[in-house]
Amino acid sequence: MTSPPSPPLTTADLLSAIDQIAGEIDAEFDSLLQIPGDARAPLYEAMRHAAIGGGKRLRPLLLVATASLFHVERDVALRVAAAVEAIHVYSLIHDDLPCMDDDEMRRGKPTVHRAFGEAAAVLAGDSLHALAFEILADPATHADPFVRSELILCLAQASGPDGMAGGQMMDLEAEKANFDLPTVTRLQALKTGALISASVEMGAILGHVPAAGRTHLRGYARDVGLAFQIADDILDVEGDPELAGKALYKDAEAGKATFLSLMGLDRAKEQAAMLVNQAMEHLSAYGKEADLLRAIARYVLERDH
Amino acid sequence: MTSPPSPPLTTADLLSAIDQIAGEIDAEFDSLLQIPGDARAPLYEAMRHAAIGGGKRLRPLLLVATASLFHVERDVALRVAAAVEAIHVYSLIHDDLPCMDDDEMRRGKPTVHRAFGEAAAVLAGDSLHALAFEILADPATHADPFVRSELILCLAQASGPDGMAGGQMMDLEAEKANFDLPTVTRLQALKTGALISASVEMGAILGHVPAAGRTHLRGYARDVGLAFQIADDILDVEGDPELAGKALYKDAEAGKATFLSLMGLDRAKEQAAMLVNQAMEHLSAYGKEADLLRAIARYVLERDH
Repeated sequence: MTSPPSPPLTTADLLSAIDQIAGEIDAEFDSLLQIPGDARAPLYEAMRHAAIGGGKRLRPLLLVATASLFHVERDVALRVAAAVEAIHVYSLIHDDLPCMDDDEMRRGKPTVHRAFGEAAAVLAGDSLHALAFEILADPATHADPFVRSELILCLAQASGPDGMAGGQMMDLEAEKANFDLPTVTRLQALKTGALISASVEMGAILGHVPAAGRTHLRGYARDVGLAFQIADDILDVEGDPELAGKALYKDAEAGKATFLSLMGLDRAKEQAAMLVNQAMEHLSAYGKEADLLRAIARYVLERDH
Repeated sequence: MTSPPSPPLTTADLLSAIDQIAGEIDAEFDSLLQIPGDARAPLYEAMRHAAIGGGKRLRPLLLVATASLFHVERDVALRVAAAVEAIHVYSLIHDDLPCMDDDEMRRGKPTVHRAFGEAAAVLAGDSLHALAFEILADPATHADPFVRSELILCLAQASGPDGMAGGQMMDLEAEKANFDLPTVTRLQALKTGALISASVEMGAILGHVPAAGRTHLRGYARDVGLAFQIADDILDVEGDPELAGKALYKDAEAGKATFLSLMGLDRAKEQAAMLVNQAMEHLSAYGKEADLLRAIARYVLERDH
């Protein structure tokens, strides 16, 4: 007698997985960012302010969920996930600076430059940036130097000028130019898509999946990343700033082309749903062990912040 | 018959070594930073503005000179040196920002934020930061993943919150506090010393020198780094802004404690000379193959900018 098929993950299951990882990532940063007893204390306080307590932790969730497909030890996956989240958090700190998006609130708290000053915010971002690579290069994170080096290359490419930072530059240019849909798609693929894809890919690297075997997971990540960004554009207009913990309507005010402005609300929603279906298809080779990845894809559309 | 002992390197020899490496590092950055045909072009232009054509290239020089002690292929050492210099250049871009030191000139050119705007400057710094780790994690840079991973750990530690970025934070605090000599020494050991030491250490890592065998080279690097900073403080008061290519007298104006303000000019000069002698002693186990490292130590005192 085989056991009956287990039902797919409910939203409640997913929210509990999100809660769990939020606590685990907070614990990683708490142990990594112990405040030293010298004049660097404000730097560490600024890093803790940004890194601990808040955020959806989407990237760690994707990384840990992918790693679990290949039975990677959860502690190892969490440490690597903290490195990816450190990159994400550094980018938020710098993105919020007065010379960039000039945001006052982030994750329901004052942004780092408002709480600690602009100079400390620049340095806290730079420090989290270095910390990410310090974590990944540490033999205590993973014993195999080949895996460490592959993780680092993946993360550096995804966050540098041909990934996230390049997308942020395009985003700056978006205020001056009139980007069309292919250009906005490319912008978002770099700005948010690259790090989301890296999260999935790094889970697969931890699972010793060779590059050729990652095609479907990469497809899943690309579709989820794009759906996430379309949903973000929709939430930027339809969302509740209180729930979001940050200012909304900023893209429209800045006159930037977004998926919403280019496609209209109905087509944007259709497109996001289509992408989530496509993401599911990329997982068809996996059984119920991929249910968490499926639930994350659905959640990207259903979330209210 | 043995060949007669070769004379030590003259200042002219050293200047020609500096010239050579300047051209080689420029060529590395030129090939790494090809301008893409999309909206990221200004980002790459800003990175090129900061990274190409200028600077003493002290860190690359130290790295390549150390690597040559162990017969490391020059091309490999240069690629790794470009990674260290990318970190140095990113730190200069961020350090020059209005919210940090607010500098208008660097290496005889307008600073990046003056030439490209503050937002592009933040992103150009972030991009060079990621590029450094991308270079080091690339199998094309070094075939051995253990060496790659060791190089990355060394550089990440030297540039993060327990190295350069931590020193920069202490430097921000220096304007508010009255630091004593041990605290200023610690500040400088982090702010500039850590990356200078990493340059030497990474040369030794390329030479497969185990950590225990790097003690003397680390001592050399520590002494040279400190002597370099004392000389910098002296040049900040006695130097020629034209030759320096940047504004001087800034520390005194900001009321920051420096080696000079704490020790006075005569004792500062004595201390720097003592450190250079000490650095030489750390090289006593090496023959003429270390003459370039000896010449660099002397030059740290003799330079006029």
